[in-house]
Amino acid sequence: MSRVKQVTIIGLGLIGGSLGMAMKRRHLAGRVIGWSRKSSTLRQAKRRGAIDVGTTDLARAVQGADLVVIATPVDAIVPIAQRVARWMTPGSILTDVGSVKGAIVQPLERMLPRHIRFVGGHPLAGSEQRGIRAACGELFEDSTCILTATNRTNRQAVRAVMRLWKPLVRRVVVMESARHDRLLAAVSHVPHLLAFALVNATDGAARAIAPRSFLDATRVAQSDPALWDEIFFSNRAALLAAMKSFERHWHVLQSSLSRGNRAALLHQLATAQARRHALHDRSR
Amino acid sequence: MSRVKQVTIIGLGLIGGSLGMAMKRRHLAGRVIGWSRKSSTLRQAKRRGAIDVGTTDLARAVQGADLVVIATPVDAIVPIAQRVARWMTPGSILTDVGSVKGAIVQPLERMLPRHIRFVGGHPLAGSEQRGIRAACGELFEDSTCILTATNRTNRQAVRAVMRLWKPLVRRVVVMESARHDRLLAAVSHVPHLLAFALVNATDGAARAIAPRSFLDATRVAQSDPALWDEIFFSNRAALLAAMKSFERHWHVLQSSLSRGNRAALLHQLATAQARRHALHDRSR
Repeated sequence: MSRVKQVTIIGLGLIGGSLGMAMKRRHLAGRVIGWSRKSSTLRQAKRRGAIDVGTTDLARAVQGADLVVIATPVDAIVPIAQRVARWMTPGSILTDVGSVKGAIVQPLERMLPRHIRFVGGHPLAGSEQRGIRAACGELFEDSTCILTATNRTNRQAVRAVMRLWKPLVRRVVVMESARHDRLLAAVSHVPHLLAFALVNATDGAARAIAPRSFLDATRVAQSDPALWDEIFFSNRAALLAAMKSFERHWHVLQSSLSRGNRAALLHQLATAQARRHALHDRSR
Repeated sequence: MSRVKQVTIIGLGLIGGSLGMAMKRRHLAGRVIGWSRKSSTLRQAKRRGAIDVGTTDLARAVQGADLVVIATPVDAIVPIAQRVARWMTPGSILTDVGSVKGAIVQPLERMLPRHIRFVGGHPLAGSEQRGIRAACGELFEDSTCILTATNRTNRQAVRAVMRLWKPLVRRVVVMESARHDRLLAAVSHVPHLLAFALVNATDGAARAIAPRSFLDATRVAQSDPALWDEIFFSNRAALLAAMKSFERHWHVLQSSLSRGNRAALLHQLATAQARRHALHDRSR
């Protein structure tokens, strides 16, 4: 399977729409079928070049697909996967793009019929915007895509999903879902929570003079609250642990400041600066 | 004084250099004199169009100036102001661009001779970079410049410094230095500390997959540690209070999450989202 014959994308929001656009632009699939609840979204997705054919009928959407990608909000992924599995071709591959993995991979491994090969996926790309209107064929460029593998995961299926993402991202990494959830709590979920908290901790007079440091730090607080409520609660244990870890480091800075230990604070800032400098950052 | 005859800028880093470039581009002063400890910086500042004449001699730099702007790191502002006051023309105006105001305005009001009219200033612009090489004539565009006024501040001098900044920024606001320090602690110093803490709270594996939310939230952790150590300690009381306020809001989110109260968390996220959406944000 060097080129997939039919890919079906369930959910044509920012991620699903961008995936369709990126795949079609690179001719990675014979045809891309899109499913959405709304026909207006399907029309827009077609106009924007994200899909070849659209349908609001879930059964028809997945019929004949070699690969089905679920790109709905996190809470809808497991119930939709259970439904589409009934209509999928035996031996075909099911994957998703959810921002959490344990809460999706574990139930699906228990529930899905054996003839559906499931591989959890998560392209680490996105923005504070949502919907097909914000979709863009370059969204995944320079990002990492994580795929999950357990001892029940079919290795051939992992390679097939990898082939889907490889041309679209900087790199594809395979790891256990628990590790994904720990890492993402630290580098994505905590930064989002910090942004929401930072906005709520300021009054209108302060926000009115907000410099770029504040605007950048709180950009993602413009994200959809319902989407993030789902993500935070789906990764609750790992997120609470990452929050504690953040707090420990926050309190180290606080303690240097309140004890008046300038040398200690300087050292802590310099450590962070060196680590941040070392990161690949396309925006610089 | 509709057009200043001579402005002297003490310190030609990111802010001093950008100020010179912005002023010269708009012909806001008859001539711009620059002072730096290093003659290599003076040469670069001249080549980049930030100054007309440069000198490493502080006395000569300020002689004959109608307006002297101190643009050094925070800790150097008070000692340099004391030195240059001796050589400044009686009745001329002294201002600064320091990121904290109480720690600068209060000692200077006690120490400066009466014939020097001092007005504290702070253009809320900058970047994680520093030095004349990062300077840019558009740095202040779309930003707010805060000037401080106490009952000892000469109102005419405030208006003169206002005329300097008005053409360069979105708006100039006058307030007490204590209010400046409280507001800046909330919208600048806390976001910087959060960025440093967030980097230190992640391990290399997590940072290696850092998505844009993390990169944006930690961009300012690339800032110069020594500069920020000075700023944090110069605004220590207000910063510690702002940190406490941030923590209260952080713990509200944490508590909703740990108690499993999805509706409460959703409401808190939605509040932040609406507030953040309401902000003027040039980067969007």
